[in-house]
Amino acid sequence: MKRIADYGVKIGKMKPGKRNTITDVEGVTVGHVTLSDRDIQTGVTAILPHQGNIFKEKLIASSHVINGFGKTIGTIQVNELGTLETPIVLTNTASVGTAADALIAATMEQNPEIGRTTGTVNPVIGECNDMFLNDVRAQAVQKAQVLEALANTASDFQEGAVGAGRGMLCYSLKGGIGSASRQMEFNHGVYTMGVLVLSNFGMLSDLRVNGKPAGHELKQALLDSWEEKDKGSVMVIVATDLPVSERQLNRILKRSVTGLSRTGATIGHGSGDIVLGFSTAVKIPHDKPAQPLTIPTIHEEDIDTAFRAIGEATEEAVLNSLVTAEHVVGRDGNERPAFKDLLTEFGIELT
Amino acid sequence: MKRIADYGVKIGKMKPGKRNTITDVEGVTVGHVTLSDRDIQTGVTAILPHQGNIFKEKLIASSHVINGFGKTIGTIQVNELGTLETPIVLTNTASVGTAADALIAATMEQNPEIGRTTGTVNPVIGECNDMFLNDVRAQAVQKAQVLEALANTASDFQEGAVGAGRGMLCYSLKGGIGSASRQMEFNHGVYTMGVLVLSNFGMLSDLRVNGKPAGHELKQALLDSWEEKDKGSVMVIVATDLPVSERQLNRILKRSVTGLSRTGATIGHGSGDIVLGFSTAVKIPHDKPAQPLTIPTIHEEDIDTAFRAIGEATEEAVLNSLVTAEHVVGRDGNERPAFKDLLTEFGIELT
Amino acid sequence: MKRIADYGVKIGKMKPGKRNTITDVEGVTVGHVTLSDRDIQTGVTAILPHQGNIFKEKLIASSHVINGFGKTIGTIQVNELGTLETPIVLTNTASVGTAADALIAATMEQNPEIGRTTGTVNPVIGECNDMFLNDVRAQAVQKAQVLEALANTASDFQEGAVGAGRGMLCYSLKGGIGSASRQMEFNHGVYTMGVLVLSNFGMLSDLRVNGKPAGHELKQALLDSWEEKDKGSVMVIVATDLPVSERQLNRILKRSVTGLSRTGATIGHGSGDIVLGFSTAVKIPHDKPAQPLTIPTIHEEDIDTAFRAIGEATEEAVLNSLVTAEHVVGRDGNERPAFKDLLTEFGIELT
Amino acid sequence: MKRIADYGVKIGKMKPGKRNTITDVEGVTVGHVTLSDRDIQTGVTAILPHQGNIFKEKLIASSHVINGFGKTIGTIQVNELGTLETPIVLTNTASVGTAADALIAATMEQNPEIGRTTGTVNPVIGECNDMFLNDVRAQAVQKAQVLEALANTASDFQEGAVGAGRGMLCYSLKGGIGSASRQMEFNHGVYTMGVLVLSNFGMLSDLRVNGKPAGHELKQALLDSWEEKDKGSVMVIVATDLPVSERQLNRILKRSVTGLSRTGATIGHGSGDIVLGFSTAVKIPHDKPAQPLTIPTIHEEDIDTAFRAIGEATEEAVLNSLVTAEHVVGRDGNERPAFKDLLTEFGIELT
Repeated sequence: MKRIADYGVKIGKMKPGKRNTITDVEGVTVGHVTLSDRDIQTGVTAILPHQGNIFKEKLIASSHVINGFGKTIGTIQVNELGTLETPIVLTNTASVGTAADALIAATMEQNPEIGRTTGTVNPVIGECNDMFLNDVRAQAVQKAQVLEALANTASDFQEGAVGAGRGMLCYSLKGGIGSASRQMEFNHGVYTMGVLVLSNFGMLSDLRVNGKPAGHELKQALLDSWEEKDKGSVMVIVATDLPVSERQLNRILKRSVTGLSRTGATIGHGSGDIVLGFSTAVKIPHDKPAQPLTIPTIHEEDIDTAFRAIGEATEEAVLNSLVTAEHVVGRDGNERPAFKDLLTEFGIELT
Repeated sequence: MKRIADYGVKIGKMKPGKRNTITDVEGVTVGHVTLSDRDIQTGVTAILPHQGNIFKEKLIASSHVINGFGKTIGTIQVNELGTLETPIVLTNTASVGTAADALIAATMEQNPEIGRTTGTVNPVIGECNDMFLNDVRAQAVQKAQVLEALANTASDFQEGAVGAGRGMLCYSLKGGIGSASRQMEFNHGVYTMGVLVLSNFGMLSDLRVNGKPAGHELKQALLDSWEEKDKGSVMVIVATDLPVSERQLNRILKRSVTGLSRTGATIGHGSGDIVLGFSTAVKIPHDKPAQPLTIPTIHEEDIDTAFRAIGEATEEAVLNSLVTAEHVVGRDGNERPAFKDLLTEFGIELT
Repeated sequence: MKRIADYGVKIGKMKPGKRNTITDVEGVTVGHVTLSDRDIQTGVTAILPHQGNIFKEKLIASSHVINGFGKTIGTIQVNELGTLETPIVLTNTASVGTAADALIAATMEQNPEIGRTTGTVNPVIGECNDMFLNDVRAQAVQKAQVLEALANTASDFQEGAVGAGRGMLCYSLKGGIGSASRQMEFNHGVYTMGVLVLSNFGMLSDLRVNGKPAGHELKQALLDSWEEKDKGSVMVIVATDLPVSERQLNRILKRSVTGLSRTGATIGHGSGDIVLGFSTAVKIPHDKPAQPLTIPTIHEEDIDTAFRAIGEATEEAVLNSLVTAEHVVGRDGNERPAFKDLLTEFGIELT
Repeated sequence: MKRIADYGVKIGKMKPGKRNTITDVEGVTVGHVTLSDRDIQTGVTAILPHQGNIFKEKLIASSHVINGFGKTIGTIQVNELGTLETPIVLTNTASVGTAADALIAATMEQNPEIGRTTGTVNPVIGECNDMFLNDVRAQAVQKAQVLEALANTASDFQEGAVGAGRGMLCYSLKGGIGSASRQMEFNHGVYTMGVLVLSNFGMLSDLRVNGKPAGHELKQALLDSWEEKDKGSVMVIVATDLPVSERQLNRILKRSVTGLSRTGATIGHGSGDIVLGFSTAVKIPHDKPAQPLTIPTIHEEDIDTAFRAIGEATEEAVLNSLVTAEHVVGRDGNERPAFKDLLTEFGIELT
């Protein structure tokens, strides 16, 4: 699949990781289940933060609300305790209950002591509203499909109109799943910042590709015949192996908005724009050890490199979600074209 | 049922409302579905903030996290938009997904335009962990039971080991649902502050009844044979007809902790202590009117009366949850005695 | 003075107000005191939100911390009470104490009941660190100069290396004070969004002018001889006559980051990036009236227009601060060139 | 001086430290400058978190706003960076500017690189409003007095109507400075939680001493002749040597409200109730070391002990501020009696 870099667009100053996706962070895997059958154009995307028992070996985590018109589940506990204890599941807005139910069940299945000798589990579910292409009222996602997405994750994964991204729009075109990564070099080592977005926001005329007003150009080529919608939202999932405290991670997550903004986002009202992130640098044991923990964290003076990395990776991930998505016809014949097709049709250059 | 006032205990300086419950706030109703069958000791409690279509006529609302080790759903949007657009549903921790799923479905059923011509709906679900008395791993609550609780609300409702409170503990004894209210008198009118708690926290030896160390006394009478647990949590639901902005309401909600503290709470780590509140003073239309809204709000100098009211009502609601709850035997024969039975057995006076 | 629009650069889609500054919002005035004497290159900028007694007639206000490595004073109370009760004073980091002292004194002077029959006053002071061009250790700003800035405000005011902006840098060049505005059209009226920035952030190579990588181009023209610094910060002051609640205003303030980002900002660690805003639509009386207040606020569906307006106005205000600032030589002979001079010298086009 | 424990009142279940003050935390010292001359009844209290160069060796720190009607300075940066880099200075509301100015100057004096090769410094100033007994409009505190308080700190220090507490009220009686501590025992060691309060809040009739309604009793003895005021506020300064992250510390600070509540506080509107805390367990170097930092922190399961400790220490510190304060006559002959004198006069027992 042709990604934004394949169009000659170079976002920022930093080097991407090997795959230029979130799975460049060691241990992270991504899985999709895609539902595509006439009015049902939706799905599930699961992100595993590491390959062990996440409930028993939690990761330092944080969340940040860019815009809170959304139904993301699980952030209260993430913020209170600073840890993630489940995979992250993305789906459509009306299916968050089912996704939570499934993720709770899956974690209890793996951990027989939950609800017996230890407490309960905090499921983390993100969502966007795919009602334009998908019959969201059908609450079509089933528990089994959530479990399937959790079960079939891998380092290699698809972008575009797949998984939770199946029915999403981006800058009034087809959007969905996109990813990118950046390498961060310090004296003490090289680390990776990985981003995965579920894009579902923006008006075509606002779209900028590396500063170039490509959306405005395309809008004019379409002779203004294209109705613009901005009722969307975006989920930004961030993974890093940089050793950071939950406070530092939160500072980093907040900078994802710089990347969104540079693609043209105004962070519209009608959307849930939520950032969820974790660091794989250290595992926090569920069970209390005899001695206090020892948490490695960068000195604050190192953090600017991470700020730049997340901005660049988020910007590129959004563009990847846009340029990899294919044309989809969905609910009641509603459809959204693929950006890549329009680029060809109207001969628009991105560089 | 004998409530704490019937024991001669007078909490604070203010007068309660007619019923001395949350339903003293005009339009508010409460419904329970209780599941009680051997290992299953759990349930659902629904609070309707008004009797119309809440999605179409939203209420000013806010939430406050006292302690965030909890799985409450829906607070991100409540805080972003300052409104509540569904009933509030309480249940056990592992059933929040099912409850969200049901509440989304019920609201879509009532509002055919959701997911078609307007966006989606934000379900608000609170929970506590009833694992000691209930087999929480069974995720026993079904969608139909959530719908039933929503359907059978009324001004009169039971307290104690009912609904979501069926399996909860309070100060190591049986707890559950409790409620209280206070009247607030101003030159411009008389208003009501109503509180409903789902209590599930505290160690017996910490319990204070109106300052009196009743828990310590009882603990000694029990010859220390009683194992104390504090793995609990508390949901505090607040209703008022006082005209307040969401900021003012949030300030009020924060003061509920004074009432909790006076019953002996240390706000332990292992709990989700969450406050959700709304004002019925004005309805915010879902659909945009031609002119800006006009929101009546008290002058800030009036707010101390509300601060005192919520503290008193919360303190009394917790004591009501404790004193009305009956003895329950549940999962694996685990049991918790009723405070009222122990008071009689050991001849302990509360005044 | 030539502003960014005079270079043919058109930021965004919306129309600016008459002056294209923050004082397009009726009643708002701005005053500067500039200190420029060898090692001392600093000053004070005062923003009056209305021309009456602000303590007696407060305005709905809010603040937002983009990055909190800063010493802004007064935001705790602004956020708790949702009101502004003094002018806003900007100065250098080491002079915030003096500025607070002066603003408290000035407000007490105007209001003899403060500290007698009513409480105290909450001064609001913003700052950036001008240590490169200014001897910030000298704490050169005197109380009298703060009072002078408060006394000499007007609708017309200078931009660039004046007032608090005297010693500030922007994208490694000379920065300082910049402003812009946007008109917001609704069925119920036309309103104005005004922004004033104190710019002191950014690395030259990141600078974008309306998407164009002007900084990168200039950096190459300078043959990399130019040392880049990003230790800066930015204060964003927002005024509007749109009727909004403090929650709505806060949502609006958060969107200023889209404008900053589009000029190339990565929101670096070493800075205090703070947004302070107020609405002039309604005055909140200090003294409690007999009846509750009635607050006009837009319906939430109207807010996207304000989100776009603040993004555009912030982006243009930053560019105005950059393009109007003149070359300054300061502490120990440190100097920063004017962007406008470099544009001419290297023949760089901004469109 | 007779403290609350000397009256036979035992607060809570935990053991106090050696001095039962904040200085039981190794390295912490406290100093006062008291101004007492007719209408001027005010002062300065300085808390040194350790005896080295705090700017160069910062401490993990956090703040929490219980009620934000206050003018505390410095919390934005403390919360962003999670560190404290200066002593904490307490004074009256109208003198916060002078105190900030002095603390900036003192820190720059000690660190010649500030404003030259490194950035600036974040002064932390807390305050309460002593306008009833003090002529707060006089802004009587001078820079030299702030420096003096910083210079003369020690492990032993006075409580009551001294330093910043000189003019403060507590439960309508004379209040001021109070302190207490608790020992926290874990398998991995014994640690100390120390609290110092500047008390200036509460209505007499609400006062509870270890649950006993002593204020109500005293109010009746006074035949209601006593006018009650609650326009106050409280600063709570927390020190510990427990190894905690800034997130954990913040959780701990939030629990101070349980202690305040148990003395009868309703957390009234007209006050700034702010908690500032730090841990001495690890020093964060100002200058970046070659390798990432290693931060020792307790496992979250250990935190309940700290929650209990801060509640108990805060409750006892408030009572100590009340019972140690002497009768003060101040501005315009306003006066407040000493609790200890009234106890004797009316023969009221506290146990």
